[in-house]
Amino acid sequence: MIGILGGGQLGRMLALAGYPLGLSFRFLDPSPEACAGQVGELVVGEFLDEGALLRFAEGLALVTYEFENVPVEAARRLEGRLPLYPPAKALEVAQDRLREKTFFQGLGVPTPPFHPVDGPEDLEEGLKRVGLPALLKTRRGGYDGKGQALVRTEEEALEALKALGGRGLILEGFVPFDREVSLLAVRGRTGEVAFYPLVENRHWGGILRLSLAPAPGASEALQKKAEAYALRAMEALDYVGVLALEFFQVGEELLFNEMAPRVHNSGHWTIEGAETSQFENHLRAVLGLPLGSTAPRGQSAMVNLIGEKPPFAEVLKVEGAHLHWYGKAVRPGRKVGHITLRRDGLKALEEGLARLSRLVSELPWEGRV
Amino acid sequence: MIGILGGGQLGRMLALAGYPLGLSFRFLDPSPEACAGQVGELVVGEFLDEGALLRFAEGLALVTYEFENVPVEAARRLEGRLPLYPPAKALEVAQDRLREKTFFQGLGVPTPPFHPVDGPEDLEEGLKRVGLPALLKTRRGGYDGKGQALVRTEEEALEALKALGGRGLILEGFVPFDREVSLLAVRGRTGEVAFYPLVENRHWGGILRLSLAPAPGASEALQKKAEAYALRAMEALDYVGVLALEFFQVGEELLFNEMAPRVHNSGHWTIEGAETSQFENHLRAVLGLPLGSTAPRGQSAMVNLIGEKPPFAEVLKVEGAHLHWYGKAVRPGRKVGHITLRRDGLKALEEGLARLSRLVSELPWEGRV
Repeated sequence: MIGILGGGQLGRMLALAGYPLGLSFRFLDPSPEACAGQVGELVVGEFLDEGALLRFAEGLALVTYEFENVPVEAARRLEGRLPLYPPAKALEVAQDRLREKTFFQGLGVPTPPFHPVDGPEDLEEGLKRVGLPALLKTRRGGYDGKGQALVRTEEEALEALKALGGRGLILEGFVPFDREVSLLAVRGRTGEVAFYPLVENRHWGGILRLSLAPAPGASEALQKKAEAYALRAMEALDYVGVLALEFFQVGEELLFNEMAPRVHNSGHWTIEGAETSQFENHLRAVLGLPLGSTAPRGQSAMVNLIGEKPPFAEVLKVEGAHLHWYGKAVRPGRKVGHITLRRDGLKALEEGLARLSRLVSELPWEGRV
Repeated sequence: MIGILGGGQLGRMLALAGYPLGLSFRFLDPSPEACAGQVGELVVGEFLDEGALLRFAEGLALVTYEFENVPVEAARRLEGRLPLYPPAKALEVAQDRLREKTFFQGLGVPTPPFHPVDGPEDLEEGLKRVGLPALLKTRRGGYDGKGQALVRTEEEALEALKALGGRGLILEGFVPFDREVSLLAVRGRTGEVAFYPLVENRHWGGILRLSLAPAPGASEALQKKAEAYALRAMEALDYVGVLALEFFQVGEELLFNEMAPRVHNSGHWTIEGAETSQFENHLRAVLGLPLGSTAPRGQSAMVNLIGEKPPFAEVLKVEGAHLHWYGKAVRPGRKVGHITLRRDGLKALEEGLARLSRLVSELPWEGRV
């Protein structure tokens, strides 16, 4: 039995990918409503509750996680008893934006300019170094655009400093990028690695809404560059599992933005759009099995369903549309499902997206890839 | 919640296809070990146990089945309370080889010659009509080559008559066919229909071992003929769900052999090898949702794992190989899993099958499609 820290949709999709391999799953999540509980055993408890950790760990073959804000302390305690992949160190790095950027900078991976901010003096110094506009972000705990502010003037920067708590922050230069792309990489216990093609990601209100995979027009050189960066990070962390890296693309350059030491929303298209899904490859990696082919099958788009339930019958009428509903209650701003649209070419994909854009609100789709 | 009569691997794969649609599942099976119970709620009980039927039916939206030997009486009882698809009439027809062949004959679908046998006189009469060699089969309850005998002489026929119980039998002419093919068809609640490409099936010891999909070299005319036969049967039965038809191919003719009113072993390749799997399309059909595309993606082979657990790591090393392990105890002659090999062409498929044939015993593979 495989243990998964976190019981959200990523855990749910890991389990659905793992049953065909004959695996079974147990989740640890603070919420009794955690949607992975519909497809596997759910232990309800706080990650740092020793009793819950014990009930969760009992009889497991290994532990992985689907949520990068699992307390590192919980991961460390489990790591002492059971194999845990990816290593707890990857969680530590990913949970702190300053540490994360410093780590990648140390690997020779370009990043936007950044500066730690623990008060007004740091802010002033930072603004000199990174210029304006800039982004002031909490070092820890932010996600989906929360815990950050775009600042265009010194006054806005001082207001944001107050609003974000005055310390534990990072100021990042705002890069006028062409687009955001992500790379899904995977490394097995034997050191074997594989990479999915780069994905283009489009956001709205700080939340990922649309991924296009493979990223239209991405050059072979850009792909190789992203893979080289991911390889350095995975080797430095002795990483095992799927790792997601988000970049800003500026011409043929990639600036590292952030990492997620887990399967990732921008990799959901791989269920239908690649020979082997990110979920299955994560499981293969942590189990020490050979990795599966990451080759794409045609052209895919992934459309997130945020706080809304579209008419299923209308969605399923769209050729090549595959619905993934997570079994969660619909609440504003909540990721409750996604649609993967898989077609054999970009033209057909555009037609399908045009139809989906009439069924899903806030899909950032202007009619052309 | 969807109720499924039967809790074997077909039910398990139906559930795994249904979770992404936000569905949940309950199974009724006489065995507490039923492998679908690992991925959904399992009610353990005999199909005709009224208490078990009540516990099973409580709160269900509809009922379907994964096992065609469910007692018709159980289906009828449920049909009085809940929507049940496919209709119980399809079970009745499928459970009796004589009725089944008579039904298809009545639709103008060619079959091998056949004759009912309830004693030595019928047998004599039958041998005159269908000739030798012939197959003597029980009308009810046979599967995977059980409950039947190939007879080459009158003496063998008389021995087989005794061995098979003397009555309730059917004698069928032995047709020197080119190959066995099957068609997976699906019909929705609105009458919408879709058809997968014909599949070639190879048996060993009476058990399906290998399917090739689409069936290599099958003509468009052959496909259309099979579809027309399936359409007649589905309309006559007011059928809803996936229907599998097995045929003997003789030149460009198709002789009906048997039907299964459910998802079928020869359709397992559709999980990776078609745009929409047979499992998802069965669920879409019974829910009244639009059917998904049945278009194949490249060329697939499905290899059954019968009573053996191959080395998983070796299997997963084969490019395009996808493992499905059902979570059942390994016993001789038992279907415990399958492998789908999906490649972009026949040549690559042959290479992959050559590798798999070294990992799976009794794979009827002679090196060429």
